[in-house]
Amino acid sequence: MENFKELPMGVRDYLPNEARMRRHLENLFVELVEKEGFVEIVTPTFEYYETLRVSAETDLVKFVDRTGELLALRGDMTTPIARVVSTRLKHQDLPLKIFYAATVFSGNFAGRNKLREFKQLGIEVFGDVTSSLEAALIKLMVFYLRQARVKNLEISLGHVDILTGLIEEYELHNHYQEIKNALNQKDFVALEGILERAGKNIKIRENLVELLQQRGGKAILKKAKKLINNQQAKSAFLELEEIVEQLNNAGIKEIKLDFSLVRDLNYYTGLVFEAYTPYLGYPLGGGGRYDSLLRKFGWDTPAFGFALGLERIMESIANSIDK
Amino acid sequence: MENFKELPMGVRDYLPNEARMRRHLENLFVELVEKEGFVEIVTPTFEYYETLRVSAETDLVKFVDRTGELLALRGDMTTPIARVVSTRLKHQDLPLKIFYAATVFSGNFAGRNKLREFKQLGIEVFGDVTSSLEAALIKLMVFYLRQARVKNLEISLGHVDILTGLIEEYELHNHYQEIKNALNQKDFVALEGILERAGKNIKIRENLVELLQQRGGKAILKKAKKLINNQQAKSAFLELEEIVEQLNNAGIKEIKLDFSLVRDLNYYTGLVFEAYTPYLGYPLGGGGRYDSLLRKFGWDTPAFGFALGLERIMESIANSIDK
Repeated sequence: MENFKELPMGVRDYLPNEARMRRHLENLFVELVEKEGFVEIVTPTFEYYETLRVSAETDLVKFVDRTGELLALRGDMTTPIARVVSTRLKHQDLPLKIFYAATVFSGNFAGRNKLREFKQLGIEVFGDVTSSLEAALIKLMVFYLRQARVKNLEISLGHVDILTGLIEEYELHNHYQEIKNALNQKDFVALEGILERAGKNIKIRENLVELLQQRGGKAILKKAKKLINNQQAKSAFLELEEIVEQLNNAGIKEIKLDFSLVRDLNYYTGLVFEAYTPYLGYPLGGGGRYDSLLRKFGWDTPAFGFALGLERIMESIANSIDK
Repeated sequence: MENFKELPMGVRDYLPNEARMRRHLENLFVELVEKEGFVEIVTPTFEYYETLRVSAETDLVKFVDRTGELLALRGDMTTPIARVVSTRLKHQDLPLKIFYAATVFSGNFAGRNKLREFKQLGIEVFGDVTSSLEAALIKLMVFYLRQARVKNLEISLGHVDILTGLIEEYELHNHYQEIKNALNQKDFVALEGILERAGKNIKIRENLVELLQQRGGKAILKKAKKLINNQQAKSAFLELEEIVEQLNNAGIKEIKLDFSLVRDLNYYTGLVFEAYTPYLGYPLGGGGRYDSLLRKFGWDTPAFGFALGLERIMESIANSIDK
């Protein structure tokens, strides 16, 4: 053991100063969400692979136990929470307001700084989630990140039905996944190429790329309305207008509309959002509306949630102090 | 997914009431140990199997990752903490006082009620651990369990050198592991059989079985001194006397000497102890002195620690309320 290898790639220890900060940030979160009526659910670190893969887009860490069962470490908390509420809590008063603070795992750790184990602080709401509840939950996330002293916070706000409406309007169905991937990577050169291959003229290409590349306030909503006229997009615009108005009234000025916002996970069905700071090259976290996932566990209910990465919050705070 | 299997054996969900209690009991522990100057270390849920198996007696949950490395879920926190302090903290002021609140895993889950995942609340102290520090740490454990409202608490106190001395005195070297296993299971019929096969006369057999079967105060120390005379046992007796005296003076009346106390783990080298309540068929937790483990990571230092099972504390509290 004298020359033992310390730790595998993608996992790390947290020494006392960092551990204290982790605990502080978690307690701050718990205090805030408990005050808003959220209650905690704790689920196992591993469970059946077949269950966990329902929502997971990233690779799961899999293993076979001594009884021959295929198990996996949880890759997110939304699926386990959906499993628990669908099977054990659906007869409670709605909306059900759940929070968690839990470690999740990724089998894919090739990227720079990519962790295989990270802690998520999150909430999920089940039942009839109105626009004003959605706004209140985004406000809750912003309040937490402010209290955590994340600097120069920005919230990108989008809606999956805007992309769906655009695909419909411009008959881009055969290019849906390609376009989604390009947007996910904010690769607007690739997007332009896809539109060209799809036979769209230069004017349309320029308009669409410009629309998707912009982030901002109500002005870009106006522009979008001119370019996309179908019903699906229209009700998304209406929803976004309402939410932005409510958030602005609540003093949340950190909001930017961003129609290129498509989250990694395919289960979102409405509003989506992500939290950013200039001190970090990736989002602190995000969430949105997911109305179809629970059906897979036998309970057909709307749902809404967000998750924040504890290590990402800590990294952004450390970076903002260094500068 | 309509007929999905809920959860594998040996793991479980904790619904809001239990989750709230878990968090309360953890926070109570953290508050108490932080007041005593302990600082937290957080380690990864999985790391190299080769590292974790250093102290693990139970089976570890193993898996091979995509790079072909053999990894395992941690089976206890003592080994990871020993790894961290040996490599990164040994130049700090001693004694180093570390705490943790972490989930650990067992590959062996055949037993009744046996969990594959459970949470441990524990401390480890590195450096020159005096008898009075040992007493103070046992007191800390008792204070915590009292605050957690564990009822009818009892602490069994033993010392590995009493068994070692007895083996020496009665030339039972060839039966050491057998005897240890019998004591671990409190199987005194088996013990009597082993002593008989070892050729010990009826008088010796009766005396030894009686000694090991008893739990109590200073009276059983007196009896033990008559039966075991060698140097190793003598200094263990002295140490136990000191500790019992200090604990009694500190108002800790829950202490019972128990010379049959041998903990599962082979790394203990001195004082050992376990916490019990009549509301639970197994210990709430325990710990002791381990002076050789750190050497395996390149730092030769005495160490002392204990761990408590959060699920066990909760179960004992629930059982004591039911009755």
